[in-house]
Amino acid sequence: MPTIPTPSATAPTRTKGRLFLVPAPLDFGCTELPELQATMPLGTLNAAAGLSHWICENAKSARAYLKRVNDITPLCQPIQALSLVELPREVHKKGDHSGNFDARPLLQPALAGYDIGLVSEAGMPAVADPGSSVVRAAHDLGLQVIALVGPVSLLMALAASGLNGQNFAFVGYLPQDPQDRVSRIRELESLALKTGQTQLFIETPYRNLVMLQALLHTLQANTRLAVSSGLTLSLASTVSHTTKQWKTVTHTLDNATPAVFALGR
Amino acid sequence: MPTIPTPSATAPTRTKGRLFLVPAPLDFGCTELPELQATMPLGTLNAAAGLSHWICENAKSARAYLKRVNDITPLCQPIQALSLVELPREVHKKGDHSGNFDARPLLQPALAGYDIGLVSEAGMPAVADPGSSVVRAAHDLGLQVIALVGPVSLLMALAASGLNGQNFAFVGYLPQDPQDRVSRIRELESLALKTGQTQLFIETPYRNLVMLQALLHTLQANTRLAVSSGLTLSLASTVSHTTKQWKTVTHTLDNATPAVFALGR
Repeated sequence: MPTIPTPSATAPTRTKGRLFLVPAPLDFGCTELPELQATMPLGTLNAAAGLSHWICENAKSARAYLKRVNDITPLCQPIQALSLVELPREVHKKGDHSGNFDARPLLQPALAGYDIGLVSEAGMPAVADPGSSVVRAAHDLGLQVIALVGPVSLLMALAASGLNGQNFAFVGYLPQDPQDRVSRIRELESLALKTGQTQLFIETPYRNLVMLQALLHTLQANTRLAVSSGLTLSLASTVSHTTKQWKTVTHTLDNATPAVFALGR
Repeated sequence: MPTIPTPSATAPTRTKGRLFLVPAPLDFGCTELPELQATMPLGTLNAAAGLSHWICENAKSARAYLKRVNDITPLCQPIQALSLVELPREVHKKGDHSGNFDARPLLQPALAGYDIGLVSEAGMPAVADPGSSVVRAAHDLGLQVIALVGPVSLLMALAASGLNGQNFAFVGYLPQDPQDRVSRIRELESLALKTGQTQLFIETPYRNLVMLQALLHTLQANTRLAVSSGLTLSLASTVSHTTKQWKTVTHTLDNATPAVFALGR
């Protein structure tokens, strides 16, 4: 596999290490744990197995992931011997793009020649997840940054929605206050209808059904709404209809499964 | 691998077939053809191998891809026996979201119980590529739509940029006219600085350097610009700096390698 750069093992072999962005499977928190190879390329698993230094959203879930990697490709070191550093809590909360967190100290091992992996709890780090401060710091330090292939729920949801994939936006979470939420839905719908730009957003799973209800009450009859839930899991589902049609179909959205919402024309 | 639904082979086994969105590797048109398993999960390759009916952007490149799949997982039928239907030319051109193309006739085999694969020349179908008309038609016909995991250059570029991944937009191509291009760059920069929304766009590779020059001449000194090129290939590179810094760094962008541009704060 010549095209996925092989990370250095325990002994550094280059002047500066690289930063690998390592996607994680989308089954975080699920009782069903599918085989990694169903959704993770071998190139990604091999690269992950070769890394001795990690920056992670949560050390416990990173170790659990690496344990599954080890079942397919032996890790370069026993899990207990790996260096795992957690991103500070405030970085999680603020969405990691306030610009105030200096991640350069976390990347010191790269200056000693070690490759470093960045991993979040599910999906691609730094996309709808913490990590961008680490990537920025890596560029500032002159490190090579290599994104590996893995599942990205936002783009899978967009592709499966049938909505415009030539022009789209992801806007994160919508407001929790019911009135603010309705205003924001109206704003996003107006933008989507005017410009043709599909609007994607997410919600904490336990508010999925409240969000769906707000959308169906607020959106115009001919606006298309797509909801993807449980992507890559056996219960994966994408329902995509105009608001009018939604009111007549059955869906299986629940308040436990991560979902991605998309609206447009 | 219980979580990637197994497509029906030649004989239909269910009332309605499903639509599988099958990602293709990002090496389209390259002389270097990396091993598929470096960037494609086995679950995706197995699903692709099981499909006898295809809708594709280009039949010749779809066959070339399936030939590579066959080297890893034997196809359910000889390549010559597969049913491959091309999307009409006008759908490619108009970006497939004018709403005028009725793709339902292409999905007739699904009504006879056959699963169908949708594939474009590179990356995820229906994302910055034709296919959304087929996905919409599938939902209209009540078919299950299943997006498989594979490389998506836009999201890899976003992750590797260090720019805001909690709020971002992909806006397709910028205008070719130099003055219009500058206006559009100013518009996107203003939006990105005001809202914090990272703006992603692409360019036909032979205009990469013209685009880069226009960006460096137009953007404010502290705006961050990231350019990812050759993603998943051995020449993969992401350069991410403020405009001011860009003017002092060396880069390897050329007029032949597909690139993704991102700007933000």
